[in-house]
Formats: sequence, structure tokens, C-alpha cells
Amino acid sequence: MSTETPTGAATDDRTGVWLIGARGNVATLSIVGARAIADGQAGTAGMVTERDPVSQLALPPVEGFVFGGHDITTESLVDRAERQHERNGVPDGETLAAVRDDLAAIDERIEVGTAINCGAAVGDESDQLDPSLSIRDVVGQIRDDYGTFRERHDLDRLVVVNVASTEPELETPEAYATRDTLEDAIDGNDRELPASVCYAYAALVDGHPYINFTPSAGNAPGGLRELAAENGVPHMGRDAKTGETLVKSALAPMFAGRNLGVLSWEGHNILGNQDGLVLEDEANAAGKLSSKGDVLEAILPDIGHNRVRIDYTPSLADWKTAWDYIHFEGFLGTEMTMQFTWEGSDSALAAPLVLDLVRLIAHADDHGEGGLQPHLASFFKAPLGVDEHDFSRQLHRLYEYATRHS
Amino acid sequence: MSTETPTGAATDDRTGVWLIGARGNVATLSIVGARAIADGQAGTAGMVTERDPVSQLALPPVEGFVFGGHDITTESLVDRAERQHERNGVPDGETLAAVRDDLAAIDERIEVGTAINCGAAVGDESDQLDPSLSIRDVVGQIRDDYGTFRERHDLDRLVVVNVASTEPELETPEAYATRDTLEDAIDGNDRELPASVCYAYAALVDGHPYINFTPSAGNAPGGLRELAAENGVPHMGRDAKTGETLVKSALAPMFAGRNLGVLSWEGHNILGNQDGLVLEDEANAAGKLSSKGDVLEAILPDIGHNRVRIDYTPSLADWKTAWDYIHFEGFLGTEMTMQFTWEGSDSALAAPLVLDLVRLIAHADDHGEGGLQPHLASFFKAPLGVDEHDFSRQLHRLYEYATRHS
Amino acid sequence: MSTETPTGAATDDRTGVWLIGARGNVATLSIVGARAIADGQAGTAGMVTERDPVSQLALPPVEGFVFGGHDITTESLVDRAERQHERNGVPDGETLAAVRDDLAAIDERIEVGTAINCGAAVGDESDQLDPSLSIRDVVGQIRDDYGTFRERHDLDRLVVVNVASTEPELETPEAYATRDTLEDAIDGNDRELPASVCYAYAALVDGHPYINFTPSAGNAPGGLRELAAENGVPHMGRDAKTGETLVKSALAPMFAGRNLGVLSWEGHNILGNQDGLVLEDEANAAGKLSSKGDVLEAILPDIGHNRVRIDYTPSLADWKTAWDYIHFEGFLGTEMTMQFTWEGSDSALAAPLVLDLVRLIAHADDHGEGGLQPHLASFFKAPLGVDEHDFSRQLHRLYEYATRHS
Amino acid sequence: MSTETPTGAATDDRTGVWLIGARGNVATLSIVGARAIADGQAGTAGMVTERDPVSQLALPPVEGFVFGGHDITTESLVDRAERQHERNGVPDGETLAAVRDDLAAIDERIEVGTAINCGAAVGDESDQLDPSLSIRDVVGQIRDDYGTFRERHDLDRLVVVNVASTEPELETPEAYATRDTLEDAIDGNDRELPASVCYAYAALVDGHPYINFTPSAGNAPGGLRELAAENGVPHMGRDAKTGETLVKSALAPMFAGRNLGVLSWEGHNILGNQDGLVLEDEANAAGKLSSKGDVLEAILPDIGHNRVRIDYTPSLADWKTAWDYIHFEGFLGTEMTMQFTWEGSDSALAAPLVLDLVRLIAHADDHGEGGLQPHLASFFKAPLGVDEHDFSRQLHRLYEYATRHS
Repeated sequence: MSTETPTGAATDDRTGVWLIGARGNVATLSIVGARAIADGQAGTAGMVTERDPVSQLALPPVEGFVFGGHDITTESLVDRAERQHERNGVPDGETLAAVRDDLAAIDERIEVGTAINCGAAVGDESDQLDPSLSIRDVVGQIRDDYGTFRERHDLDRLVVVNVASTEPELETPEAYATRDTLEDAIDGNDRELPASVCYAYAALVDGHPYINFTPSAGNAPGGLRELAAENGVPHMGRDAKTGETLVKSALAPMFAGRNLGVLSWEGHNILGNQDGLVLEDEANAAGKLSSKGDVLEAILPDIGHNRVRIDYTPSLADWKTAWDYIHFEGFLGTEMTMQFTWEGSDSALAAPLVLDLVRLIAHADDHGEGGLQPHLASFFKAPLGVDEHDFSRQLHRLYEYATRHS
Repeated sequence: MSTETPTGAATDDRTGVWLIGARGNVATLSIVGARAIADGQAGTAGMVTERDPVSQLALPPVEGFVFGGHDITTESLVDRAERQHERNGVPDGETLAAVRDDLAAIDERIEVGTAINCGAAVGDESDQLDPSLSIRDVVGQIRDDYGTFRERHDLDRLVVVNVASTEPELETPEAYATRDTLEDAIDGNDRELPASVCYAYAALVDGHPYINFTPSAGNAPGGLRELAAENGVPHMGRDAKTGETLVKSALAPMFAGRNLGVLSWEGHNILGNQDGLVLEDEANAAGKLSSKGDVLEAILPDIGHNRVRIDYTPSLADWKTAWDYIHFEGFLGTEMTMQFTWEGSDSALAAPLVLDLVRLIAHADDHGEGGLQPHLASFFKAPLGVDEHDFSRQLHRLYEYATRHS
Repeated sequence: MSTETPTGAATDDRTGVWLIGARGNVATLSIVGARAIADGQAGTAGMVTERDPVSQLALPPVEGFVFGGHDITTESLVDRAERQHERNGVPDGETLAAVRDDLAAIDERIEVGTAINCGAAVGDESDQLDPSLSIRDVVGQIRDDYGTFRERHDLDRLVVVNVASTEPELETPEAYATRDTLEDAIDGNDRELPASVCYAYAALVDGHPYINFTPSAGNAPGGLRELAAENGVPHMGRDAKTGETLVKSALAPMFAGRNLGVLSWEGHNILGNQDGLVLEDEANAAGKLSSKGDVLEAILPDIGHNRVRIDYTPSLADWKTAWDYIHFEGFLGTEMTMQFTWEGSDSALAAPLVLDLVRLIAHADDHGEGGLQPHLASFFKAPLGVDEHDFSRQLHRLYEYATRHS
Repeated sequence: MSTETPTGAATDDRTGVWLIGARGNVATLSIVGARAIADGQAGTAGMVTERDPVSQLALPPVEGFVFGGHDITTESLVDRAERQHERNGVPDGETLAAVRDDLAAIDERIEVGTAINCGAAVGDESDQLDPSLSIRDVVGQIRDDYGTFRERHDLDRLVVVNVASTEPELETPEAYATRDTLEDAIDGNDRELPASVCYAYAALVDGHPYINFTPSAGNAPGGLRELAAENGVPHMGRDAKTGETLVKSALAPMFAGRNLGVLSWEGHNILGNQDGLVLEDEANAAGKLSSKGDVLEAILPDIGHNRVRIDYTPSLADWKTAWDYIHFEGFLGTEMTMQFTWEGSDSALAAPLVLDLVRLIAHADDHGEGGLQPHLASFFKAPLGVDEHDFSRQLHRLYEYATRHS
């Protein structure tokens, strides 16, 4: 078994990784992967930071990541990883055996979280912070957890990443459009404020770089962006682009570039993991569907019809399967079609991006680059502050950043 | 019925379009489309030059194109267009009726061509130049045809476009690597020299801009590039990117960009038009398969397995259907798949690109930009002189060109 | 133009065909097809009765069918057929031209119908029977229309076929479980009674053979079956099996027969015709989804998960496109998948079956075979009185019937 | 670990199973599966004989099968099973562990085989009978091996099953059309006689029931059928129907039954196991492609175009992936399409059928039913002596047999 010390580190920073939803699918596989890489059990396929030119940057090594986090579930990391192994075949048995002790140790560092305003679909059989606490007290507890962890492990920085299940869409984001209104809401014990915003606020107010990997509000409200800018903290989000939407953001520009008119683009996603179950709840699905749909509207402003469905199909477990059907019109009104089926392990596609984002946001932090990070747009379905949705062009920005810094 | 005078012309150049293979599917639909646009019967969907930012360039209007060409088939343009209508539904009946008289008039301007060294699959029921003519005489006849047409129609320029059926792959392109060896071959009556090279030579030697829309050798040999550079004639090719390969060049960069390892990429194309029949002949298919396959090798240098098949399926007529299956490996060795089916009318995808390329090469000619035109790489499977195969990046070059010139 | 007299008739019966929803897609294409066959403009592909052994039966010829019907739309048959031609390409221009006069003549024979209890999605811009009429009066009017038509055209029999848009599911079919309760409901002006039941009652009470081509209640309630049995009238239904469900009923027995366990079967249908629009209304969709889903439950009683979706995608018009994904388990717990995409013109698949069913129910009537017709089960998603859903076995019954009678 | 004694046997026959190609994929997984069932490690999904009504028959239990066989490879059964586990994930680790000792014991009973006339693609790194032996001696050796095994294990019967790699197609099957000409060929040391025929002859001449699971000649020549009939030995074949062809035999009858004209049916198979590699050799592929293609010709005599391709795609290992594209014509000449993708583990689909066939042919033997067994047609792509290719009807015959005998 390995120990958590950097091997062949590109920098000798000690980087902490604090996962909101630390026992979920994505968090678990991120931790498994990082430790398997550290043990030499796994390669780095799927990691953007391991490929030229991004690999030229001096980034904190995955081997040195110190993991902690919040969760409301009581299932241990080891149990979750075993369940993933059995249901999805990922991780495989050898990998799991190699990192089992690491998982058990990391599990000890996961604190009890909060699920306020996370919707009805989340929260059964959970262990949460006392729901009678005021919002201000909840935020205070989270800040303490972050701070204590950073101190105890003598970290140079703590990157906070939201990988928790999707919350219902925030109804009045404009109510938190400035730092003042946001802090008034916290002090006024505004029960509409969702957990993801509390976690993001607690990070940014204390200078911890923050990533929102999910469609939840997180760091999106204006008040948080103002706070991050004032404090010079790097942060980015929203909703990691791992499967069907990734393909859309690569394919839709082709139709646009050839001046082919898309009459209809139907996307049907089926999956059977916890995220799928949460998304069965219509309120929780709204946010996700919105950012998935927006990509096409942005690239193909004249699109005739655009629908995305996500359905829960238990037997598929983590294997998200998407069928997209594209009906388009070309020269002389000729109608043509393209369809694709994508079959990917959702967690195996997401986990390496978590590691990439931690490394890249730590790099920004190290270089004093606070605020939103538009060069990270390629990782997200709804990149905050960025209008570009063409995957290739988004990636180009990252490559330019890498070239500039290396 | 319309007459062939520019309406709302962006420039008032008179541009001639000389099509090698003028009665083939692509040529026919290009002519039908141009005349239908001139008549207000058709829109410009599928034309890259009608979309911002390329539409900002001052380009010769499609309405003003004066068409002529060579062919070896005796089926008239009108008959071919009717056959396309009946078999493929493209063009539709109304469009065909509107341009029928134009087609009949243009058909009168199509000269008898040559099919020397075009392979056994081409040439039945054809009317060709006397096969006993020397290569030098064949070239002379072609030059005469080009010159006479340009003069008779008082053209500012004549753009020559090769849209003839695919020839067998040239076995010894290095034998024509310089202008000298090429002209020696012509003078020495080298019977290995394929028709496409003769047509290209005849264009470039007399200063006619040239486009090779096909996988045939055309302007690829070094001797022709040297000639074009010396004469300052713009030219470009090779093998227009209209369907499956277009999709590949948009999708493969996504796998590369996310550091996902492609284990296998299988492409199976079925189609039932004349091109499909010619490609049944293995010799003729070799060139096409090679440029189709190279795109993946260039974008995914570590690809494990890469095969392209083209099969002739008569009932599909011009509807080229491709199934691609991509087996790839991500984080923790997780194997995943993507597959797509593309169903496009080959001619309806190709024809607008012919019109685009004529306009853009005419623009280059007008601005004294001789030699290869790398900003046109996005149009081709095997863009001469360009290593970039990522469709989005190729397009970016075109947009930069457009921005620079407008 | 042809006249409506039997040519080469297998019998010289004069058979009338009364279509409920006579200006809908299916009705229109059935009429177009019958008249095109009569004119020698079309073949009989898609008709089961034109293939051995069913073609051995002495059946009334399609050429001799005398069409009439009810509808609530005011768009004429000719206009509808033209719209189908333009949107779907079916029928083609030549066929339409050949039957245009026939359509205009038949349109004159379409009477104003009723849409009571057909759901909110039906009925805009319509011309209906006075909604203040009592149910008994509505039924009376329908009976008059049937009777007058039969008499005026001197018909040997009038076959009534329901091809109207799908109604919301009948909430209390058990309220009409006997002839007595049904007739009490009619007399008591029960406003829950849907139009389809009124049309079916009017047919069966007067001895007109009846077919329910749709998922609506029609002849399904027990009271109507009792009535038909008492009167010795042949009738059958429910919900013609034309596309995705047809494939299911051919494929699902394969999984069953090989003892492969289906874990999940997802079916996603998209279409853009009037039926699709009506089915957007959840109430109207319920009946259809139910009969589509039941087929799998019947063939695969141990199926793990079974969902059918129908979505409205306007650009597809009548082209119903279905993607089905089947996740199954075999030997040693090995999980495997199959997926298919079906792209069919809904009306072109349905119309020949309307003609088949008219011919076959007329045959039953001619042979005094009253009541339900189990040998017609292969035509329906939810065959009344038949538990067998395996398409091949259903067809076997039809072939046995044909062999027995020929 | 289990021992090889029948548990809960339906009969107490001792049935031996002799596998030609005993260390191949199919044989290995058949043995693994049988032993895993015996150990209670695996269920019987995928076995037709475990489903009503076939399960009503008194069949020898899989738990009691005594395995032996011939092979020319030197890789042990355990090694092969491990390789299958690693490359395909089938069998899984637990199953493999449970049967490992059984495999090692069975491996001891595998005798050195012959690969005469099996084509160039077979036979590297192999251990074969001395190639200088005469055919008569080879046959003698095989007969000895069968007999010795039966005697040593005190078996009631020995079922011989050919699961070896596909041989090149037999060029002159008519040369062995009678028992006399066949035996003359053996005595005359006819070097055209392929191994599969020698193995079949050796079985039938000594009364061992025989199954040809492959497309090789095996028991197909007339001389062997004559021999089997004379000796009253049950036998059947040819080419087990496990994947794409199985689907075809379920789907094609649907098109036929609805009188839809299939214009083209394209089938493209890709796989990466040993069979795939052998089939890369055109000679070896010919037989397989022929029986795959014949199914469609039989069910759809008017099919316009029918092609099957099998390509070797290493990364897929045993996962045979097939894409089929069906272009068909319906009412009013409407052209429509269906396509499917099948992704199945070839061995996991085949192995349970081996067990089924052994049980069923043993049943026939037990009941004195010699000669070909038409009720087993559903198992084969090219069922000997049976013209019916509709899967549902083939299965019906098996069900009738089961009902008759139980």
C-alpha cells in the first residue's frame, strides 16, 4: 500500500481536495483513481492534464492529493467502491484491492454535511447537520471543517469541489446577485438558500479555490462571483461535460460550420445510478436539462426543435447510455439524419476531470489568478462567464493558457 | 426561366466553372443548385460561403457562374438530373422543372473528355477522345477546350473543378515530382499518366484556378505544385469531405482532447450511386480509403485499429449511409463505446461545396494569391500541404482568412 | 381516371368502407392507396392479403371498395393528401395526381362527426355535431349516416373502421360491461361515454362489421362484445400494430425462446404528425402507451424494466422514428445489449392494413362468423380476446384460417 | 469444489461430452458453465432446455456431464479460461476460481487432435497427430480416443460435438455423397478430406451421437447422413445460430409476413476472438458467410441485395458486434429503413446451446431416434435437412417435440 506523499511531484505544494458529496460515485472514483495512480496500479487515460500541451504546466501531482470532504450518507467509501465494482465493473477487483486501505483512511476524514434545500429526492437514510441550525451556523460549521482540515494536514491550499447530487433549480438566483444581498440572506436565515451555495460561500469567503462540478447553483449567483473577485480566489463551474453533451459540443459546430440547418435534435439519456434516481425527480432534473439544452441553442441559434430527456433505467447502473437523433436540412432542402449512441461509464468519465480541475485551479491559485477561469470552459456544460460552447474552441483556450504558462 | 447574368453580385467578375465529369452526380446537382438559386427556387443551406464570417468576403455570385465541362458519358444533363430526381428524390420535381431549360443549354457546352488510366470500372458506354492520341495531344485538346470556352463567354476567369469518378491510385507519384519530370512524361507519352493529372496540368499551365474535389491524383504530384507556384495560379484539393469523414474530423479531436484512447474505429459506408459502383473496383477504392483513413491517424496517432469499408448497395442510390463504431478506453482502463449512423445525400452534401470552392478560389485568384490555399483545408479529406485534420481548427483558418479580407 | 367498379374481383360483393376519422392521415392514405391500386398506379406491397396463403381467400377486391366516413375536420381529403405529399413525400406527386378526382368525389360523402369525450387535444377548428344533442340522438344520427350510405350505394355490406385520433383512456370501462348497462348509459345520456364507443355501438347494433384500428375504447367494453355476439356481427381491434410494437412482437419472442433475461427494454418514439401532437397530451397518450407496453409484459413476464415514450418532433411529420434499447442477461450472468432504430412512414405502414382488415372482416361476415376474430390478432397491439402477442404465432393463426377457407 | 456426479438428475444416465476443439472459446466456456452450474455458482440463463416446455423433458443433467475432447493447441483449459476472463470479463473472477480445479482435471483428458485440411489460418503453435499418418489411421486414432474415454468413464453414451475453428469450405462435397464413396476416400487416403469429416465419421460409425456446432463440413456430406441412418445414430448441425443470424431469423419473417419488400439487407460483423482471426482468411470465411446469407434468401426469396461481412477487430475480443441495415419498401412504394446493433459475447451465447444440444441429442439417442433431428433446427444457421429458417417456427417444432415426449 502506498502512502499519501507526492512522488515525482511537478511542484511540492501540498494540495488538499475537499469533496462535497465525498461518498458519491464521482468522488469515490476520483479518490480510487488518484490512489491507484499513486500506487502505479492505473494510468492517466482520461486526464486532460496528462496530455500535451497541458502536461507542460507545473501542476500539483495527483499522488500528493490529500482528500477529505462532506457527505450525508453513512455508507463508507469502501462499501461504495465495492458496490461500484459489483454493479459497474469499475473499478476492477485488482484496483479496488490496491486502494482499499487508503479509502478506509480517507473515509475517516469525511465530515457530516448538510442537505438543506436539496430537494425531496435526496436525503433518505442520511446523517445531516441538525436541521434546526441557522444558515449562519451551518456556514460556520462548514468553514470550521475546511479550516481544521487544512490546518491538521498542513496544506498549502485546499480546493473545494462540489460533486454532490443535483439540487432543484434555484428559483430566485437574482436574490443573491450581490455579496450584500447574499450575506443578508445568510444572516436572515433565508431557508431558500440551497446547500451548494452555503458550501461555495464558505470556501470563497476563506480563500479556498472552488469548483462546481454539478448543475446546482453553487458559485453561480452574482454575490459569490463578487466575493471571489474581491478575495482573489479562483473558482469555476458549472456542470461537468462528460458524455452526451460533450459529444454535442463537438458535433453541433460541424453542422453550424457547414451551414446545415438542424430541424430537430432529440437526446435521450438513460442511466441507473444515484444521479439517475435523483433526476427522476422533475424538480432536480430541471437544472440539468437546462444546461444540457443550452449548449445546442448557443451553437445552433436557428435550431428548430431541441429536447433532452433523462430517464432512470436501473439495470444500467453507472453506464449512461444516450441516443441522439439529428434531423437536418442541406442543399436544395434535402433532409438528412445522423444518430449516435454513446455508452459510457459516467463516473469513469467524470473522475479524471475532477483531478484535472483540482490541478488547474490550484495552478491558478498559485499564480494569483483569482475570479472565474474561462480557460477551463471546456470542462463544463454551462461554463460561468463564457459564451463559447464549441468544444474545440474551448479547448483551444486551455492550450493557449498552457502554452503561455509553460 | 432565368438567364445567366449576375443578380445582386458581390463583384461583377464573370466567372466560368469548368467541371471535369460535368454530367456526374455532383456536377449535375451543383449546376441544378446554382441555377435554382439564380431562379429564387432554392436557398443556400449547405453553402459555407453564405454564412458569417465567410459571407463577408466579396465573392463572385453563384447566379453569375457560367458552366461548361468535359465528360465521357453521353447521358445528357437533363436526363441525369431526372434520374437523380427519380432515384434519390433530390432535386425535387419543382426545382427540376425550373432549371430544365438551363440544364439543356449548359449540356451543349460539355465537350468530349478523356478517361485514360481511369481504371476498368470507368468508361463503359462512353464517348471519349480518340485513345490513340498522344498524351501531349490530349493535353493540347483540353487546353483548347478551356481557352475557347473562356474566350467565347468573355470570362474574367475560368475555374476548373475535377468532380469525375475516382481513378485507381497513382502508383508512382514520385515520377512526377518536378515540373520537368512531369513535362517529360507528357512529351514522352507516358501511358501511366492518369486523366486527372492531364486536366490539372492543362488548367495550371494556362493560369486557370483549379480544384480537385476527388481522391484522384489531379494536382497532387509535386510537378503540378511547382507549376502552379511558378505561374501564380491558386489551386487546392484533395477529396472533398462531405459525410463520414467530416464527422470523423469533428469527433476524433474530442477523443484526443479528453485523452481517451481509441482502441478501434470501424467505419462502414454503403452507397448505391455511380461512385459506389466505381469504388467496388478495388483499385479505384484504394485512394479513397487511404485519405479517409489518414484523417484518424493524423488526429489520433495512438489509435489501435482503424478500418474503413465502402460497399456498393444499389437500392440506396445517392444516399450514403455510414455506420461508425468507436471502442475507446478511459480512466482506470474502462472500455466504452460510441457509434453513429450518418444518412446523407452524397451529392446534396457535395454540390454546395463545389460552389463554395469556386467562389473562394476565384477570390484568391482575384487577390493574386497563387499556389496551394491552406485556408480551404476544411473542405478536404486530404488537404494538400496541410497537416491539420481537426475540422474546427481547419474552419478557424478559413474564418481568419475571411476576417482578414473583409 | 378510374371508376369505382371492381376489376378482377375475387367476389362480386359490393363492400362499403366507412372510416371514422375519414380525413385523417391513415384514412387519407388508405383511400389514396385503394384508388391508386384501382388505377394501376400502385402495387400491393404492405398488404398481407396479397401474399400467400392469405391471398388464396376469396376476398372483396380493393378496387371495388366504396368509401365514406365521418370526420370533424373541415380540411378536404384532397388538401390533406396534398399536405401529406408535401410534408412526408408519401404519396408521391404522380400518385396524387392520378387519384385527385376520386378523392374529391369521396370527400363529398364524408359526414360531420362527433368528438364527444375525445380529450382536449382533439377538436380545434372542427365542425362537429351539435354538442347539446343527447347521446342517444348522436347515436341515432350515426346510425342514420351508416344506413343511408349503405342504401344509397346499394352495398352488400358496410365495414366501419375507426381510424380517428386516440381518445383519453376510458376511466370506467366496467360501467359498460354488459349490453344492458351500456344501453342504459346511452339512454341516460352518460357524458363519460366517448365518441369511439358511440360509433362502435351504432355499427354493431345495425349489423355492420366493425374494426377498431386505434387504442380508443371503441368495441372493447364488454357490452359491445355482448351486442356483437348476439347480433352475430364480426368485429375486432384494438390498436393496429404498425411500427415499433410490431418489431417488439417479433423480437421479444427471440429473447424468451433463448431463455435470455431482459433486464431493461427502453422504447423511445418520436414523430411529428397529428397523432404525435394528440399524444403530447398525457391523457390521450395513456391508452397507447399501455397497449404498447403490454406486448412485452405478455411475452417476457420476467422483464425487469419496460418503458415506452412517445414524443412529438414536428420536423419528422409522419415518419415515426423509434429507438429501442434492450439490456439482457445470458449465460454466466453475462450482460449484453441490442438496440434498433426503426424509421417508418406511419401512414404508409397503417394504410394497407386498413384495406386488409376490411377485406378479412368482410370475409368473416360473408361466412357468418360473428363476434371477435382471433385470427386477426397479428394486426393489433392489444388484440381483443387474444393473449398471444408473438407475431409469428399470431400470423400462424391467420395462415391456418386462410388454409382452412381456401 | 464439486465432483462430477449428477445432482438432482432428471435421468441417471452417465453422459460423456467429447468436444472437438476442447480448448477453444466455446468449449472452454461450456465446460466452465457446466461446472459452475454443478457448483451452484451459476444459473441456467441462456439454456433453452431450462425453459418450459423443453424443461419438461427427462434430460441428462448438466451436472453429470463428463467432459473430454481433442485439440491441437497446447494452451491449457485453465490458461484459456483465464485469458477469456481477462479479455472479455466472461467468466468473472469468482466463477473462474470455483471451477479452476475442475478445468485442470478435465484438461488432462484432452487428446492430441488433427487439423488436416483446416486451412492456413489454423494450426500455428499447435500439437497435432503426425501429419504423415494416413487418413484411415487418423480416423482409427480418433475412434480409439472416443472408445477409450467412454469405457474408462463407464459412460452410457458419448456425445461428440464439433466446436473447432471454421475450416475452408469443402470444394467437392458431392465426392462424399454416399457411404461408399466416403469410405473409399478414407481408404484411398484422400487428402481433400477435412478433419471435421474424419471426426464426424469416427463418431457415427461407432454409434456416438454427433453435433456439428460449426460451419465446417462435419456431418453434412451425404455419406455421413447415410451412415448415421444405417447405424441409427442421432446427429445434427450445422453452424450454431447465436447472434446476428439469430436476430435475422426472428426479424426477417416480420418483413415477409407484412409483405414488405426488402431492397437491401447489409450485415456487418466485427469481432476480435480466435474465430474472428480465422475468418480473416477468406477461404475459412466462405462457409460461414454462406450459411449466414442463406437464412435471408430462404425467408425473403425476393430480397434485392444481401451481404454479410465479418471483420476482425482485435480490441473487441469475444464481443461480437453486428450492425445490420435493412432498406425496405412498403405501401405506395414508400422506402423505409430499420437498423440494429447487436453486442453479444459470442462464447456466452454459444456455450449454453452446446449444453442444450448435448442434452437433447442424448434424449434422442435414449429414445432410439436416429438420423437427423429436425426439431433441433432452431439451434442452427443451416439446419441439415430442414428448409424452415423462421426462428419462431423452428422453435415451435422443438416445443411440439417436448410436448409429445413429456
